[in-house]
Amino acid sequence: MNYTNLTLMTDLYELTMIQGYLDTGTYNKTAVFDVFYRKNPDNNGYSIFAGLEQVVDYIENINFSDEDIEYLRSLNAFKENFFEYMKNFKFTGELYAVREGSVVFPGEPLIRVKAPIVQAQLLETTILNIVNHQSLIATKASRVKWAAGDDSVMEFGLRRAQGPDAGIYGARAAVIGGCSSTSNVLAGKMFNIPVSGTHAHSWVMSFESEIEAFRKYAQTYPDKCIFLVDTYDTLNSGIPNAIQVMKELRQSGVELKNYGIRLDSGDFAYLSKKARKLLDDAGFNDAIICASSDLDENLISSLKLQKAEINLWGVGTNLITSKDTPAFGGVYKLVALEEEGELVPKIKISENFEKITNPGEKNVYRLIDRETGKMKADLICFEDEEIDENNDLTIFHPSEVWKKMTLKKGSFIARKQLIPVYLQGKSVYERKTVTEIQKFCNEEKNLLWEEHKRLVNPHKMPVDLSDKVYEYKNKLLNINKRK
Amino acid sequence: MNYTNLTLMTDLYELTMIQGYLDTGTYNKTAVFDVFYRKNPDNNGYSIFAGLEQVVDYIENINFSDEDIEYLRSLNAFKENFFEYMKNFKFTGELYAVREGSVVFPGEPLIRVKAPIVQAQLLETTILNIVNHQSLIATKASRVKWAAGDDSVMEFGLRRAQGPDAGIYGARAAVIGGCSSTSNVLAGKMFNIPVSGTHAHSWVMSFESEIEAFRKYAQTYPDKCIFLVDTYDTLNSGIPNAIQVMKELRQSGVELKNYGIRLDSGDFAYLSKKARKLLDDAGFNDAIICASSDLDENLISSLKLQKAEINLWGVGTNLITSKDTPAFGGVYKLVALEEEGELVPKIKISENFEKITNPGEKNVYRLIDRETGKMKADLICFEDEEIDENNDLTIFHPSEVWKKMTLKKGSFIARKQLIPVYLQGKSVYERKTVTEIQKFCNEEKNLLWEEHKRLVNPHKMPVDLSDKVYEYKNKLLNINKRK
Repeated sequence: MNYTNLTLMTDLYELTMIQGYLDTGTYNKTAVFDVFYRKNPDNNGYSIFAGLEQVVDYIENINFSDEDIEYLRSLNAFKENFFEYMKNFKFTGELYAVREGSVVFPGEPLIRVKAPIVQAQLLETTILNIVNHQSLIATKASRVKWAAGDDSVMEFGLRRAQGPDAGIYGARAAVIGGCSSTSNVLAGKMFNIPVSGTHAHSWVMSFESEIEAFRKYAQTYPDKCIFLVDTYDTLNSGIPNAIQVMKELRQSGVELKNYGIRLDSGDFAYLSKKARKLLDDAGFNDAIICASSDLDENLISSLKLQKAEINLWGVGTNLITSKDTPAFGGVYKLVALEEEGELVPKIKISENFEKITNPGEKNVYRLIDRETGKMKADLICFEDEEIDENNDLTIFHPSEVWKKMTLKKGSFIARKQLIPVYLQGKSVYERKTVTEIQKFCNEEKNLLWEEHKRLVNPHKMPVDLSDKVYEYKNKLLNINKRK
Repeated sequence: MNYTNLTLMTDLYELTMIQGYLDTGTYNKTAVFDVFYRKNPDNNGYSIFAGLEQVVDYIENINFSDEDIEYLRSLNAFKENFFEYMKNFKFTGELYAVREGSVVFPGEPLIRVKAPIVQAQLLETTILNIVNHQSLIATKASRVKWAAGDDSVMEFGLRRAQGPDAGIYGARAAVIGGCSSTSNVLAGKMFNIPVSGTHAHSWVMSFESEIEAFRKYAQTYPDKCIFLVDTYDTLNSGIPNAIQVMKELRQSGVELKNYGIRLDSGDFAYLSKKARKLLDDAGFNDAIICASSDLDENLISSLKLQKAEINLWGVGTNLITSKDTPAFGGVYKLVALEEEGELVPKIKISENFEKITNPGEKNVYRLIDRETGKMKADLICFEDEEIDENNDLTIFHPSEVWKKMTLKKGSFIARKQLIPVYLQGKSVYERKTVTEIQKFCNEEKNLLWEEHKRLVNPHKMPVDLSDKVYEYKNKLLNINKRK
């Protein structure tokens, strides 16, 4: 609910490793860890990075209280040197991250932490928890919004979210990813995002008749009433009653705006077309037809193809849980470690090529075509590499290396993706409103062609390695003996 | 993170309906709402009810602060009568619920709220959020534990949970459902449940060699070290190195217990059998072989069938997100409403038979066979109906009514399922530890035959209606005209 007290929200093994590092005397070695992921949820063409603000709030508030220490003592797993260190724990390192709302791709670093190894280790679980969750929901929302086109999407999932935070921070992420509002009032308050809603079946059932229920609702909200029309019978009762009350409102001189009906069951294509005709025939051409009930991006796409007359979408369960892919697979991997005062790149080997990590302290350049404004590729470099926009740049596929592309000098922008968030333990993070992050996210999505954004089998964005990273990685792969 | 401040965590429409009820003067009418669900997640044979303690904490702490009121005022959607009412909001009603950890079935009430309609309406979203989440994870954990048989299951999902609460309360629910521990230290502290863990790949990578990393870990945790053996090469490096360090520990006189290896990638059936042989040959017959990495109940079942030599399971992502079915479909429906001083049962009609609600203020009797100790059925009755164990009882299927079953007098126990949690606005809830709830949950699962617990196509438990509920429902279905 708030990020002041998440200090202990970590996997036990982070703490036992810290005890180990303290015992071996290696606790102060500088380590670099990358956060990256291997696969877009729902086989999407990209993901949206979200949750950075909450990561900062978490780090700012790390504090092992006396009560926390007492609890850890009770586990009989730690020694005095551990308690001493943890009591005074303070993050003194640096953290770089891509901007919140960025379009991101598998394999590239999203966050880079450089700190004494015990500190960097402690942050792992919480950073992953926060970023995996919000990036998941922002990405799903972006898919849903793409399907809805110019229509607005309302986030309606609180009652099915995986706990309070999933509802609250899920709403935040959904708005970053493209939703225009949420039903969650607390999220509205916390993040200053629009809230929306209509009424429930219970409202209709609690009056003598449906028309009475609609009339009463209209008395309270004459200028913004959307009637839920499926409590008894959508076509024979709900819509005619709604139209009757709209007529009464119009006759009484109310200027109708943000008004209409909500469909919550039945065949949305059929019902919405019938509803549109009934509403139009009664002169309510601007009445909204909202649909909700187990919607997702695929159903919305299908309804659009069927020319369903829906122009406002309430999306709940499938968005707030990212139902088809309910986890974002961000990982936190050691990529460099101090050895005799020098930072040495490290690699994790695996049978699977995609599971082999990219060694070293890295950044990413986003390469954007000046003419089209669309991105061509992301290029993973060492932090100290500079890309010169005034030279030709040839990039190549990280495994199928014969696949090459040359960007002509002057034709591209090379934008550094990871920017400082912590320097020497101090936050240099610039807070943004969720609305600003959403706006940036929209700009980011505009870097992509529709081919990258389509829901099924999207075009894959190249994420390449610089010559230096590629060479270093291969060197490590070749010299890395089994030990 | 804590349930003191969830007052505004509600769908906007609950609040706009409250404004409506205040305006129509019907706000004080007594209403009864049922929480129930229609389908077990993963097509399981039952679900586990969880989250009740957090529901109580939420209700206890409902409080619209000045700041909340100020925010609501800023929405330009509410009037003074609303702010006045909300400032002094206090739940004065009653709430009945099944015990936490209960085995429950589709269609039966899990929670029943009876209160002035505005109060009952406010609680909807938050109750559903909490109960849907924890019941989902407890049910998933119960499936995973069933697959693991006598082996212990550790909940390892924090980094992939849908936000902090999903990790924290998910761990609580997982332990209720059958996990023996969690990696989440904060959940361990909050709920006094066992915490567990090993070490990460980064530990191995941060030393000169794998054997050096194992030796150092063993120095810190000589009597409880489980070595992660897949950083470089499980069979050729990881396991031989682990065995070497175990030998050194044994030679130095350490009494090995809770020790062994963890497999985190590769073919678990093959690797675990090889590992068992290597460990046994070295005299480490009691060494644990733990597996983790994208496990779920189906993979564990398959590994068991293949006679994989794994005896400890770390289950993360698929458990903490209930990956195959990431939402529990609990709903909150009006079932009775005061009319002229009388409580009148209400029904919600639908084209789908399962979506038609059961009217009235109801309870559930669990009918348990005295001889076998197994349950025969749940029977939904009106609250004031009493089942006499000293009479024969004939029950029948709610739609296929020719399907009947008679329980002979004296042969069964009829246990009332919903018990008071709030009476006249006062909590009468008896707090239990998570361990106690887990124990009760185990007893509940013992009410079921294996046929109800199997993972695929389980036998369906009858959930029947009493004669009175059945007759009343049919009466309402017949008289309910389209309005």
